[in-house]
Amino acid sequence: MKKKFIAAVVQQAIPGDDKQQNLAATARYIQDAVEQGAELIVLQELHATQYFCQREDTDNFDLAEPLDGESAQFMEALAETLDIVIVMSGFEKRAAGLYHNTVQVFDGHEGRVGIFRKMHIPDDPGFYEKFYFTPGDSDENLNHGFQPIETRFGKLGVLICWDQWYPEAARLMALAGADCLIYPTAIGWDPSDDEDEQQRQRDAWITIQRAHAVANGIPVLVANRTGFEASPDSAEEGIDFWGSSFVVGPQGEYLLEPVVESEGAFCVAMDLNRCESVRRIWPYLRDRRVDAYQQLSKRWID
Amino acid sequence: MKKKFIAAVVQQAIPGDDKQQNLAATARYIQDAVEQGAELIVLQELHATQYFCQREDTDNFDLAEPLDGESAQFMEALAETLDIVIVMSGFEKRAAGLYHNTVQVFDGHEGRVGIFRKMHIPDDPGFYEKFYFTPGDSDENLNHGFQPIETRFGKLGVLICWDQWYPEAARLMALAGADCLIYPTAIGWDPSDDEDEQQRQRDAWITIQRAHAVANGIPVLVANRTGFEASPDSAEEGIDFWGSSFVVGPQGEYLLEPVVESEGAFCVAMDLNRCESVRRIWPYLRDRRVDAYQQLSKRWID
Repeated sequence: MKKKFIAAVVQQAIPGDDKQQNLAATARYIQDAVEQGAELIVLQELHATQYFCQREDTDNFDLAEPLDGESAQFMEALAETLDIVIVMSGFEKRAAGLYHNTVQVFDGHEGRVGIFRKMHIPDDPGFYEKFYFTPGDSDENLNHGFQPIETRFGKLGVLICWDQWYPEAARLMALAGADCLIYPTAIGWDPSDDEDEQQRQRDAWITIQRAHAVANGIPVLVANRTGFEASPDSAEEGIDFWGSSFVVGPQGEYLLEPVVESEGAFCVAMDLNRCESVRRIWPYLRDRRVDAYQQLSKRWID
Repeated sequence: MKKKFIAAVVQQAIPGDDKQQNLAATARYIQDAVEQGAELIVLQELHATQYFCQREDTDNFDLAEPLDGESAQFMEALAETLDIVIVMSGFEKRAAGLYHNTVQVFDGHEGRVGIFRKMHIPDDPGFYEKFYFTPGDSDENLNHGFQPIETRFGKLGVLICWDQWYPEAARLMALAGADCLIYPTAIGWDPSDDEDEQQRQRDAWITIQRAHAVANGIPVLVANRTGFEASPDSAEEGIDFWGSSFVVGPQGEYLLEPVVESEGAFCVAMDLNRCESVRRIWPYLRDRRVDAYQQLSKRWID
């Protein structure tokens, strides 16, 4: 396992749903990152298309691809050619009428080394994800869905967007040996919210992900899309994606600070050796009250 | 249940172990707070004494008191006289050889309405708490130790210091209906750590507690001690308590910003009505994967 390396989070605006064009743009950013020495590339959620969940429309299921579809083949080939690890995100067609929001990880010539299907599915105005995405399986063989993915950089604890609000998800990945947490996401502002509310939302989103690093003593890498995407129902409405991709170390300290608007492959030097020294002096795992946590599996304690 | 009120977090330096003197100083701050309209007072961890856990010394067990000891009687009387809710923290003698780090809550003329015994006990150089404190019981009748305390301001999810690093604890309190989370704490810097490390530690501590507010959609109130307390083994060594008591609302937004050095009763206007509107638009409780969380009760998934 390689503990010192350069990672990149790719933050993009997506002008349209032409996949070829979007994948080509992403490939250029990946190439940039590799020229800066990056070997682990994290792409944002659903990077091959605009965020199509602003409306419930059965035609959008045409955007889904099987695990070995053209987008995956493209990224798998790129990972092999450049001898890097790519964390890609896509809309998976598992069967007719059964679709997931799925990350695939490719590691150089080894090809696909694992997948993660989004476990927590949001649904709020403008983010109609429950219409599109079946939640990831709770499969005992896959640590009930929270199975980190083994790569040359150790075990990647990949989670997706809405999963980021759940400390349970981060903890389960850490307990299964994740060496870092990775969140491809697609989140933004409703332009009709006032500036204070927008500020609170972005701060909350950053804070809770930094806290997963703190609670588990491992780095967190986040890639989020940027740019405005109009609603299909009204050009004046839509989502103002807040970018702010960032990376923190095992104490939640910034290795890469969040920026709202820029596009690019943002590179950061990782050193996973520091994680164990942090866990030695902040030994939260030692003191967990596993005798007292049973009720976490309840919806409500009443 | 009263949803709009003023709360105060009391941040103190403790010059010595004279309990009478310390309680009198605390009483003055409580009086100050009440004059500013406060009805809920949160005191810092082990406020009646210096932080005695810097050394393992059996004589320190003399500092412990039964639940109805002099410190509790003092605070209970104060809560009744002033008709307020006081969250006090103390060193509890439950039996010879059985001691806890315990919060008691007094609500006006109702007297003591509940207690919470610290569930997660730290132990690191200068914080030898495992020597002094038996962890709180994992009692099924008390939600395995994480039972919020009913008061005129709803259910207080009281946790203590090291508990603050555990999202599990915050979540269990929220699931049991806590209307806010409250952390009396005693944490500070080792003066031999460099400034960057000190900054990372305080930031991590603030971040993870703000994240509990975000994850659960309820406010968090934190009272921490300030000032330097020398080690009994060497006047040059000791703990530089970092104060920084703070209050955040249900999105983790500051209602009271943290300050390292000042002493005082810091007051803030609370409005618990906002919690439900935040939970309506950020419905994390709706989407928890309770079918997939069983392994949270494991130490490690191997």
